Amino acid sequence: MRAPVRDTNMSLIHTLDLCAVAVCAITATLEAHRRDLDLFGVAVIAVIAGIGGGTVRDILLGRLPVYWVHDPIYVVVGIAASVATFFLGRRLSIPKNFFLLPDAFGLALFTVIGTTVALNLQVHWFIAALMGVITGVFGGVIRDILCNEVPLIFRTDIYATASLVGALLLILLDTLGLERLSSILIAMLVTVSLRLAAIRWHIHLPRLRPHP
Amino acid sequence: MRAPVRDTNMSLIHTLDLCAVAVCAITATLEAHRRDLDLFGVAVIAVIAGIGGGTVRDILLGRLPVYWVHDPIYVVVGIAASVATFFLGRRLSIPKNFFLLPDAFGLALFTVIGTTVALNLQVHWFIAALMGVITGVFGGVIRDILCNEVPLIFRTDIYATASLVGALLLILLDTLGLERLSSILIAMLVTVSLRLAAIRWHIHLPRLRPHP
Amino acid sequence: MRAPVRDTNMSLIHTLDLCAVAVCAITATLEAHRRDLDLFGVAVIAVIAGIGGGTVRDILLGRLPVYWVHDPIYVVVGIAASVATFFLGRRLSIPKNFFLLPDAFGLALFTVIGTTVALNLQVHWFIAALMGVITGVFGGVIRDILCNEVPLIFRTDIYATASLVGALLLILLDTLGLERLSSILIAMLVTVSLRLAAIRWHIHLPRLRPHP
Repeated sequence: MRAPVRDTNMSLIHTLDLCAVAVCAITATLEAHRRDLDLFGVAVIAVIAGIGGGTVRDILLGRLPVYWVHDPIYVVVGIAASVATFFLGRRLSIPKNFFLLPDAFGLALFTVIGTTVALNLQVHWFIAALMGVITGVFGGVIRDILCNEVPLIFRTDIYATASLVGALLLILLDTLGLERLSSILIAMLVTVSLRLAAIRWHIHLPRLRPHP
Repeated sequence: MRAPVRDTNMSLIHTLDLCAVAVCAITATLEAHRRDLDLFGVAVIAVIAGIGGGTVRDILLGRLPVYWVHDPIYVVVGIAASVATFFLGRRLSIPKNFFLLPDAFGLALFTVIGTTVALNLQVHWFIAALMGVITGVFGGVIRDILCNEVPLIFRTDIYATASLVGALLLILLDTLGLERLSSILIAMLVTVSLRLAAIRWHIHLPRLRPHP
Repeated sequence: MRAPVRDTNMSLIHTLDLCAVAVCAITATLEAHRRDLDLFGVAVIAVIAGIGGGTVRDILLGRLPVYWVHDPIYVVVGIAASVATFFLGRRLSIPKNFFLLPDAFGLALFTVIGTTVALNLQVHWFIAALMGVITGVFGGVIRDILCNEVPLIFRTDIYATASLVGALLLILLDTLGLERLSSILIAMLVTVSLRLAAIRWHIHLPRLRPHP
């Protein structure tokens, strides 16, 4: 593995990461509209949607305490985004598609961050890709379990597949010797494109036909 | 941070902590009455209700193995309380309100223990408060997920809020230089009072009105 | 505790362990037939059913990164078994009872592996037995939670009890000075027999009668 990207890049990624947490918290809060939850419940579910994936990744890899214990700003941003959405969301009428692009961007960003974190720990490339996917999608999985639903990503189009392709591409480009930052940008572009293409043309994986 | 409280206090807190685990296990067993669970299922859910919050806290903070691996008495007390309730609960007819006070006391105790554990690890005060709330309420969250319900604390009055206020008060008093034990007792008193007041006068946080 | 069993035994156990993961993944995939899940969802749930118990055990004991991070073959075997079952399962019509014996064998194997891992860490014998049961049954618990069901082991016959008896027997024989491998084989035999006897004669633990 090569040295980590420069400090300016790290601080750019940190800022983007916080934006992705905020987007996750906002969409989770809007979805919670349908349920009989109080402000506390909505905020907790929103924060978990934002930081859950990275938390599971850190626990499995043994990077403890988990990342937001050292950097509470992640939790603060998640709570702030959720509370603001909770009170504004009643008045504003946000079109359903408004968050599709930010959401795809968040998936891509979480995926490359998770993969990079694992690569820096020198784990097997397959595990690094898995950690990218876990970081990308497990916040949503825990959110859905807390809301007592079968997690959306198990039922819907190629959300997690887009994340997996992005993680594998990042690792491939990295192995081929491309600069880390370029690999990250290309992997993110492909993940976002795949995700949006899947939504636009209703692409999905094979599905089991229920037994008659 | 100051030195930990004296040994007599620690052993008092240990005893109270075991009582709180027993109360959690008893109430979880009584609630499980409504479900088609066997003795094993009830006992597991009861033990998890008692030790789940502290377990999640220890994992997130990296205090591994988790606390009850070193001190199996927690699990034994939880199982014993649950099995006794399982067999006695059919004969005795315990009034529903009987456990409101012990339950509020358990919430307060778990909260101050979680907050103190985190403070002793020198984490950010905001994270310490969060760990107090997690210790206080996450046993119940996991219990409800295992029972396939939306966790009660996301739907109901100010259970978790009482825990948060207690944790923040403990940290404030600690920062102001009050003796740790006094801070703990005041924070617990406020948490119990808030919880009982919320039950008595049906105080609750803002709630989302479902979309029509 | 004595030295770990010889290398040939370890590699035998490793192979059997992979078989148990495959069996878990296959049965989870067959069960998922009833749900509207895509290939990704089925594969994830199948892998988690196979490796979830050992993962929870490793996290609670602080053996991090969890075992499959060092040894990705577990995840690969789980995915391969699930994908093959996904596509073949539609054509083949596998009788429901076909997997009862492999499944009981997997339970027994996971139990003795979990117990042995914990014994090697010198924890209290009661915790070692608990870790055996967690390794044996928690993969299925997480699988059921992801599928939005009350975990099967809380509702059904003596699945977990067979695991507990096996774990306690292994520890007893170990304490009495029997060679580790012999203890393991006897404990597995008893666990498998108990499980099959429970299925055959519908033995189950006391159950709560729901309130009228």
